[in-house]
Amino acid sequence: MSLQDVLARIDRDLPEAVARLETLLRIPSISTDPAYRSDCAKAADWLVEDLRGIGFDASARPTPGHPMVMGHGGNGGGRHLLFYGHYDVQPVDPLELWHSDPFGPQIEDTPRGKVIRGRGASDDKGQLMTFIEACRAWKAVNGTLPGRLTIFLEGEEESGSPSLIPFLKDNAAELKADLALICDTGLFADRVPAIVTQLRGLAKVEFTIRAASRDLHSGGYGGLAINPLRVMARLLAGLHDDKGRVTLPGFYDGVTELPEDIRAQWQGLAFDHAAFLGDVGLSVPAGEQDRTPLEMLWSRPTCEINGLWGGYTGAGFKTVLPAEAHAKVSFRLVGQQDPAKIRAAFFDYVRANLPADCTVEFDQSTGSPASHMAVTDPAFELARKALSDEWGMPAAFIGEGGSIPVAGYFKTYLGMDAMLIGFSKDDDQIHSPNEKYDLDCFHKGIRSWARILAALT
Amino acid sequence: MSLQDVLARIDRDLPEAVARLETLLRIPSISTDPAYRSDCAKAADWLVEDLRGIGFDASARPTPGHPMVMGHGGNGGGRHLLFYGHYDVQPVDPLELWHSDPFGPQIEDTPRGKVIRGRGASDDKGQLMTFIEACRAWKAVNGTLPGRLTIFLEGEEESGSPSLIPFLKDNAAELKADLALICDTGLFADRVPAIVTQLRGLAKVEFTIRAASRDLHSGGYGGLAINPLRVMARLLAGLHDDKGRVTLPGFYDGVTELPEDIRAQWQGLAFDHAAFLGDVGLSVPAGEQDRTPLEMLWSRPTCEINGLWGGYTGAGFKTVLPAEAHAKVSFRLVGQQDPAKIRAAFFDYVRANLPADCTVEFDQSTGSPASHMAVTDPAFELARKALSDEWGMPAAFIGEGGSIPVAGYFKTYLGMDAMLIGFSKDDDQIHSPNEKYDLDCFHKGIRSWARILAALT
Repeated sequence: MSLQDVLARIDRDLPEAVARLETLLRIPSISTDPAYRSDCAKAADWLVEDLRGIGFDASARPTPGHPMVMGHGGNGGGRHLLFYGHYDVQPVDPLELWHSDPFGPQIEDTPRGKVIRGRGASDDKGQLMTFIEACRAWKAVNGTLPGRLTIFLEGEEESGSPSLIPFLKDNAAELKADLALICDTGLFADRVPAIVTQLRGLAKVEFTIRAASRDLHSGGYGGLAINPLRVMARLLAGLHDDKGRVTLPGFYDGVTELPEDIRAQWQGLAFDHAAFLGDVGLSVPAGEQDRTPLEMLWSRPTCEINGLWGGYTGAGFKTVLPAEAHAKVSFRLVGQQDPAKIRAAFFDYVRANLPADCTVEFDQSTGSPASHMAVTDPAFELARKALSDEWGMPAAFIGEGGSIPVAGYFKTYLGMDAMLIGFSKDDDQIHSPNEKYDLDCFHKGIRSWARILAALT
Repeated sequence: MSLQDVLARIDRDLPEAVARLETLLRIPSISTDPAYRSDCAKAADWLVEDLRGIGFDASARPTPGHPMVMGHGGNGGGRHLLFYGHYDVQPVDPLELWHSDPFGPQIEDTPRGKVIRGRGASDDKGQLMTFIEACRAWKAVNGTLPGRLTIFLEGEEESGSPSLIPFLKDNAAELKADLALICDTGLFADRVPAIVTQLRGLAKVEFTIRAASRDLHSGGYGGLAINPLRVMARLLAGLHDDKGRVTLPGFYDGVTELPEDIRAQWQGLAFDHAAFLGDVGLSVPAGEQDRTPLEMLWSRPTCEINGLWGGYTGAGFKTVLPAEAHAKVSFRLVGQQDPAKIRAAFFDYVRANLPADCTVEFDQSTGSPASHMAVTDPAFELARKALSDEWGMPAAFIGEGGSIPVAGYFKTYLGMDAMLIGFSKDDDQIHSPNEKYDLDCFHKGIRSWARILAALT
């Protein structure tokens, strides 16, 4: 039977696929809240049953947290593929901002087409079901699952994945495949299908500067006693030069220039940074002044203050010289930048610029380096062609400014690259009230996976 | 009868004076907490009765908040003196840190002598009673009150004095005197009697810098979108130069150098800044590098960050680019510095240095200029001699780094200077648990007022 038959089957069965997604969306699998522990187990069990129904040897695997869902299927040739998604969802607060029950999914007509609304519709239940529905149609048409597949669904992605690395280590032999497929990303600029081939890494530092042994009155001590908020402001202000470059010595070690082919492709994307920034009330690219907006987002490292606090922050005024000042700073990393070296360079900078009478305490966190997939693997071009065929416009290899830790873990613990392909849109309101997923994205997402499976197996 | 008789009477009656103070301390007159409203009235009534008992024509005057106590006495010659104190006290939280009932005063033996412990013992019930006890002894010995006196006791000093200015305006004719006496300050360096002759003013600014229309993810936007915390850090860091001077244009307009006689006196105080800073865990004067420690504290203006916040400040990490950054900044003012001009210069500085896409909002607060008393009034030298005689060491004219607003209000609304004389010590723990007042300070404080009244009336 042909791919066209599988695609036709997908089209025909779409109402049933939507109904199955609705069933899954009704289970409030909020992983971070212990009150929903049994719901997480229920979602895992539902997925196990669904996978078994289409021929996977599936089971829920216990962890100290929520279970992992693992399923093996197919015994054909071609690449062994591991598919990753997560069945847990974010909390729904503030509930009063939802226009309908977060766990009572609704199909809605909107000016931009039909959407399915509910917590997890896009992140990640809708996305993971695109892959399962593609497998279902394939099985229905061909009688077997395509190639050789492992499905691996996590239940703790929205709560920091505490069980993930131990589970990967303990089950490496079973999980190892030729390539991972991850469906937890989006389209490019809401229209263009995309494969994420590079992700920035992350180094974080939380630190506290201390001076006097207690808060002081600024009348009685001001002018004589050192103020740690002033020290903090000066330290943080010194992290960038006037051109927006980070000043830490050695910070740019390991940062490579964009390869010409990637640069040419990104230029072809015609990224509309004015619209991208305009959506959030901004207009001017604020990064390194000699870089393009997409470089700023995807291929250049950053240093950002994510949290800053000290002194009196309540209503009214209290003329206090606080004893402490606190900040959380993070660095997005690219190329071969080493998170440990970046943290060490930051420590050195702070210590070297700390005035008399001040002490500093740093947290013990770690970081993750940037990920760059080996796009020379022909699978990437094959998948790109499959996506281009489905969406009617050339799919792009893009970067991702954020970190998707599981992609790095697959590389570190299982030795395999990942193709990150997803169909969400920027306006899906993931993690926010009124999350939705476009039914068109769901439908074309299923069809996209069928094409990719045909190309890779 | 002679001053010596009055002093002897004070010595003889000390136990009864302490007992009266204990009675007053048992009334929990916490002005900021509506639950203690009737207790504030009770304290006012007790003081009215006590003043009447020694010959004052006293009454409690209603205000929208707690009553003012006003009393007139004496019809002798010399200066008409207005004495100011406050009968309200700070809250007692955290109660668990008190070693005894805050409103069950105790006489305790300590290594440094006897103290009376309880909320308000030092601030300000113990201090205000030093003056009343001096009047009582004077009356007992002489049959009349000294000179011509007005006593004016406030019940809202610890809750922002909301009724004070309207009351001063409405009762200016009745309150106006030749000189105000304020007993709400301390000894110098815990040993040397002192008259505060200059107080720094205060200008405050609370402001918010806004950029994006919502919080952004630092992965998805970092490097491209402007971060208001970075803007805030840079703005705050730019407020001082490398020598500790404030950079705002015109900031030092109206700042005068210390007169030579005051400078000489301050040098004579041999201020031990190492001990002063050492008490709070510091060692190095952190202000303008070419100024003495006492200048930094008393006669030089400052700019301090009192509160700073933005982004994620909870446990763990959230890689957010916040939409807003907030700060509270205050300026201690000296000489003729104009609080409104200082605020305007700050506004100009922020606006001139605000990057594209950022907006700023400032609060509507006001400020108060510095106060400099006319020490050429012979009353100051007379009082200094009286204090020196009592304490056995030369009393000092000192500055005060903080603001005591009532002193400025007396100048503004009643056109009179104030002599600020008090007997508290740095370790009295005012506003904190286990507040105390040294019995020796209480006793010598009463005797000090008797000497001052003898000198001035």
